Amino acid sequence: MSETNRQILLDQLPQGPLGPEHFRLIETPPPQAAAGEVLVRTRYISLDAANRAWMMGATYRSALGVGQVMAGTALAEVVDSKDPSLEPGDLVSGDIGWQDYAALPAKTLTKLPNLEPLSHLMSVYGIAGLTAYFGLLDCGQPNAGETVVVSAAAGSVGSLVGQIAKIKGCRVVGIAGGAEKCAWLTQVLGFDAAVDYKDGALRRQLREAVPNGIDVYFDNVGGEILDTCLFNMNVHGRVVGCGAISAYDTAAPPPPLRAVPGLILMRRLTMRGFLVMDFDDQRERALTDLQAWVASGQLKVQEDILEGLENTPRALIGLLHGDNLGKRMVRV
Amino acid sequence: MSETNRQILLDQLPQGPLGPEHFRLIETPPPQAAAGEVLVRTRYISLDAANRAWMMGATYRSALGVGQVMAGTALAEVVDSKDPSLEPGDLVSGDIGWQDYAALPAKTLTKLPNLEPLSHLMSVYGIAGLTAYFGLLDCGQPNAGETVVVSAAAGSVGSLVGQIAKIKGCRVVGIAGGAEKCAWLTQVLGFDAAVDYKDGALRRQLREAVPNGIDVYFDNVGGEILDTCLFNMNVHGRVVGCGAISAYDTAAPPPPLRAVPGLILMRRLTMRGFLVMDFDDQRERALTDLQAWVASGQLKVQEDILEGLENTPRALIGLLHGDNLGKRMVRV
Repeated sequence: MSETNRQILLDQLPQGPLGPEHFRLIETPPPQAAAGEVLVRTRYISLDAANRAWMMGATYRSALGVGQVMAGTALAEVVDSKDPSLEPGDLVSGDIGWQDYAALPAKTLTKLPNLEPLSHLMSVYGIAGLTAYFGLLDCGQPNAGETVVVSAAAGSVGSLVGQIAKIKGCRVVGIAGGAEKCAWLTQVLGFDAAVDYKDGALRRQLREAVPNGIDVYFDNVGGEILDTCLFNMNVHGRVVGCGAISAYDTAAPPPPLRAVPGLILMRRLTMRGFLVMDFDDQRERALTDLQAWVASGQLKVQEDILEGLENTPRALIGLLHGDNLGKRMVRV
Repeated sequence: MSETNRQILLDQLPQGPLGPEHFRLIETPPPQAAAGEVLVRTRYISLDAANRAWMMGATYRSALGVGQVMAGTALAEVVDSKDPSLEPGDLVSGDIGWQDYAALPAKTLTKLPNLEPLSHLMSVYGIAGLTAYFGLLDCGQPNAGETVVVSAAAGSVGSLVGQIAKIKGCRVVGIAGGAEKCAWLTQVLGFDAAVDYKDGALRRQLREAVPNGIDVYFDNVGGEILDTCLFNMNVHGRVVGCGAISAYDTAAPPPPLRAVPGLILMRRLTMRGFLVMDFDDQRERALTDLQAWVASGQLKVQEDILEGLENTPRALIGLLHGDNLGKRMVRV
């Protein structure tokens, strides 16, 4: 075990776009586990748009505190245990934060199986995979033959949502930024069409990509893309509210949604927000399906792994700019 | 049968608030029923906020045409039939329009039972009652002990929604315009609290009226009231989208909803738009319940009946200004 614990603090709250100046790296002695706690060593840190949303104030969790270790989901290995439920060598995930070591109550951690590659526990078998699974299937309830549209489609959740929708027999359209990502969606992941929102003709492109309208829209972004999709929804369509990344990394107020509530009424839409933790009691079902699809090759897992704890701020800033393809994480 | 058929035409489309100048009354000979049609004589015309929404363009029905008889739901009596499914004396409802007589395909009409008072077929046993029933129970899914808030609470639908929620054991708060309506909600209908949105302290009043937050919000109005309610929703709350009257009688764009989509995600809300016609196959269940509640005195039916076809434009204009208490209709 190392003699020092590198920790990345949230040094100030961003008012506009997040930058490296909002973080600070310090070195401290590793903590010790008290009774009921375990000491863990971080292996992979997950980068998520939600990390930035937490800086906006209280959300589904309390607001982040300035001067404290930056919060974040990570995969870690138990190195010392003062709780009977875990022992050294066990793999766990939880809100471990951006640091080499953490001492945490055992009951705040989830014990994970040891499988290869380990990184899959942070992508397809982690929050991203479960979010895609429950959000699409339980909230969106797509039927074979229906049209599913997903935004941030080349991201960790979106790339899985689209593939699961294909497995379920849907026509799938992804919205992503840039020709390269769009080509990847259709040529590698098998999406039926992709819309490049950066090319300036979102409305026309989307309309052409969904000649039969949209039955399920899986929204990761909010803002103008959400509004544009709403105008293309079919009667009794379902909108799954998963994220609003367009609103996170800015001080500007979000653009008004012209379609709410009028279009929700006229087309009898259902718009449902969810968090993966609401489905904790159904994890086994999801993991069984996801593992089978990965094993059969129906579900391709794209990971975007950076090296080194010190690069975690940069990894998050880049994710907010859409630099990643698939699930972004940092190997520590 | 009279020799003349008075008809009220939509003479021009309103750009801003609806006024008498947008209508014109003409007299024509009564029409005759062709094969498959019936000739009906109008008894009660229903006034609904939706009448105004139809003038804004295509909605769930095609846009209203200038120079044509104003569309509207009515209760009528068959006076001549060229279809085996209906005979003279039968009561029917449908889109009969603002006129003394209409010749319509029998299949566009719904045959009604003959009960007293006949006006109840246009209120509690008509679209208003069914809308309140399915919207609250099937879309809102309230549980006993939960807090239900309804806007336009002194209107035809709202007054029934609140009472049905009370029957189901909920705490009920109504939002209405003016102290008189608010007093009626609490003192006559038995609502637990009422909020007067015209008194200028909507946010504070609402917050005080829902100390445990809102579990189900039944929205008839959209706009600022919807946004304010969203900020008071509990986790896993349900928003039933029934109407957006605040947006209908104006040329101004609706105010932006600050709570969408951010709050829908964080609080994992479900917002669902619906139309009563989506539940046509379940009418019997609803009517059985509604009749039992009316018979037992648990459901009070408030009707606001004006006299004379010529007063129909005025009746609608007043409804858009909130002049009515309960279900507004015109006896012809």
